[in-house]
Amino acid sequence: RKSLKIGMIPADGIGREVLPGAKAAIQALGSSIPTTEFIDLQAGFECFQKTGTALPDETVEVLKNECDCALFGAVSSPSRKVFGYSSPIVALRKKMDLYANIRPVSSVAPIPNEQPTIDLVVVRENTECLYIKEETQTVGERGIETRATRLITEYASRRIGEMAFKIALTRPRKHVTIIHKSNVLSVTDGLFRETVRGVPTLPGMNGKYDGVTVAEQLVDSAVYRLFREPHIYDVMVAPNLYGDIISDAAAALVGSLGLVPSVNAGDSFVMGEPVHGSAPDIAGKDIANPLAAIRSAALMLRQFGYGNGAARIESAVDDVIREGRYLTPDLGGKSSTSEVVSQVVKRI
Amino acid sequence: RKSLKIGMIPADGIGREVLPGAKAAIQALGSSIPTTEFIDLQAGFECFQKTGTALPDETVEVLKNECDCALFGAVSSPSRKVFGYSSPIVALRKKMDLYANIRPVSSVAPIPNEQPTIDLVVVRENTECLYIKEETQTVGERGIETRATRLITEYASRRIGEMAFKIALTRPRKHVTIIHKSNVLSVTDGLFRETVRGVPTLPGMNGKYDGVTVAEQLVDSAVYRLFREPHIYDVMVAPNLYGDIISDAAAALVGSLGLVPSVNAGDSFVMGEPVHGSAPDIAGKDIANPLAAIRSAALMLRQFGYGNGAARIESAVDDVIREGRYLTPDLGGKSSTSEVVSQVVKRI
Ligand SMILES: CC(C)[C@H](C(=O)O)[C@@H](O)C(=O)O
Ligand SMILES: CC(C)[C@H](C(=O)O)[C@@H](O)C(=O)O
Repeated sequence: RKSLKIGMIPADGIGREVLPGAKAAIQALGSSIPTTEFIDLQAGFECFQKTGTALPDETVEVLKNECDCALFGAVSSPSRKVFGYSSPIVALRKKMDLYANIRPVSSVAPIPNEQPTIDLVVVRENTECLYIKEETQTVGERGIETRATRLITEYASRRIGEMAFKIALTRPRKHVTIIHKSNVLSVTDGLFRETVRGVPTLPGMNGKYDGVTVAEQLVDSAVYRLFREPHIYDVMVAPNLYGDIISDAAAALVGSLGLVPSVNAGDSFVMGEPVHGSAPDIAGKDIANPLAAIRSAALMLRQFGYGNGAARIESAVDDVIREGRYLTPDLGGKSSTSEVVSQVVKRI
Repeated sequence: RKSLKIGMIPADGIGREVLPGAKAAIQALGSSIPTTEFIDLQAGFECFQKTGTALPDETVEVLKNECDCALFGAVSSPSRKVFGYSSPIVALRKKMDLYANIRPVSSVAPIPNEQPTIDLVVVRENTECLYIKEETQTVGERGIETRATRLITEYASRRIGEMAFKIALTRPRKHVTIIHKSNVLSVTDGLFRETVRGVPTLPGMNGKYDGVTVAEQLVDSAVYRLFREPHIYDVMVAPNLYGDIISDAAAALVGSLGLVPSVNAGDSFVMGEPVHGSAPDIAGKDIANPLAAIRSAALMLRQFGYGNGAARIESAVDDVIREGRYLTPDLGGKSSTSEVVSQVVKRI
């Protein structure tokens, strides 16, 4: 590979302020990774307001045809219904078939290389559940009635299950917890649960996952236990919506959404994305925490085979957190976004 | 009213151990409420295993025709798919049209009558959303495909919205937060959001809710903020599934699910129900926390007009928690269920 082409989609709000930090961190790796080329791409609610579409075809074309991977910032949601608007991040995940949203949530151990207190990863199915956005509206005797379809397939449950087991194999505890609500949704969540459970016994697995233990938890009590006993979790695998909620819940455990990275991963493309939103209340003030975006860049690089580069970025971020001198206000600090970025870059 | 007939449905696991405590607390009120009569009724997973139905017709008949109100314990969920089994609590809510699940979550202030740190109430829509259990299964090219329908109607959103505003009026902060995910579910959650927002301007309201402020929050960030800034919430109104998750999340804030009560309320019937589950791991050991069930009895009585009796039970519970001498293991104590019950009864 001669060079690495990275699509940059800052989208809205603080997405625009944190993505430059991710770029700076990658550039700081210098020649230890291939030459990188950054391609700026449009998407988001502001893009919708300007152009009438939240996800221009061109963005998808360039990602598919020219980019090796991408970084996404964050997207704003209209506070009132806006005709024709549809979330570009949900569309991107689907169009690029980025079927797994991998969200590691870990605290920083006080001493480097020690085991952190919180250390789990949410593996979220990224293409179906209520996110297929099949909704209808009718008028009945008692007024408006609306319906949404929640889709759970064996195919998608199996591939996210395999992803979860694969990730578990790379972790010391090798433990998978399946999140579901099959006491109410016996058909859809029943299928999810059984399919994920069945992954180790699929033809061709040959005992590959023998060392992995499996548990399950109803989504309501999973959120409860996440706060009471977070150490019981290692890899949490969940349908789309539960994964969305659980990863935000887990983020609260490590002090700030501004610390939690993710990658949207498919079989042939990967897109890093901080878990936080566009945070309109703090946008434009240079106080957004860039660490989630920087960590997302590292995850993206690792997914891509550049584990060493990823580790250098991650340990620079950990050092900055551990030192506690250069932190944004969400972590109780007084530093600006750009100051934190330059401190990370210095340590890479 | 000459006497009060209360249907008692312990159902499974610790449901059977905590409901006697609720009964004892009501009985301790003596002649300050009408004579009470308790009618034992069957339901639950064990009932299903014995009789082939989780909710016998007789239970529903007796509730409808003979009881003024009811107390429900907790129900077990099979860990594997069991043909023909369907959750009796979900069915009961629907059959009795108990459309609101009201779940107050508050901590106990160190000094009586002081403002507690955590003080919110989840008002959960109780009859629709994914809980209508319309699920289908087909086989496609890539294997099994399943679908569930999520129903949100104007009618149900309006009545739960009214309930939330009514409850807000009785509280010092008078603040309603609407929980939704309309950035993905623009039709269904859009309807929920707009309908609840529209409640104060419905014909006939005449400024009734003028003092109530309204905010909204996406469900994922609502869970995050619940942990980071719980004080921002007063009344949280949510569609069924989000309400289920959020009330468990809120329970984590006050130390134990074993403390959180609820009532399932309709226009003409009310059923108290602790928020916790049947906890098979600790069932039969006389260590389950009876306080959620006892508080549910108090809520039920208040909903019914016996506010003084309810307050006496509640302050006895608060005293026991405040003293900290008689607590079950979930709260770090060593007391048995029965010991806690007798300490509460003594203080009523
Ligand atoms: C913006 C929104 C559509 C998105 C989601 O629900 O997936 C966000 O919350 C996330 O977690 O990436
Ligand atoms: C047992 C289950 C069906 C139920 C629900 O999801 O409503 C429970 O979690 C609750 O919150 O009362």
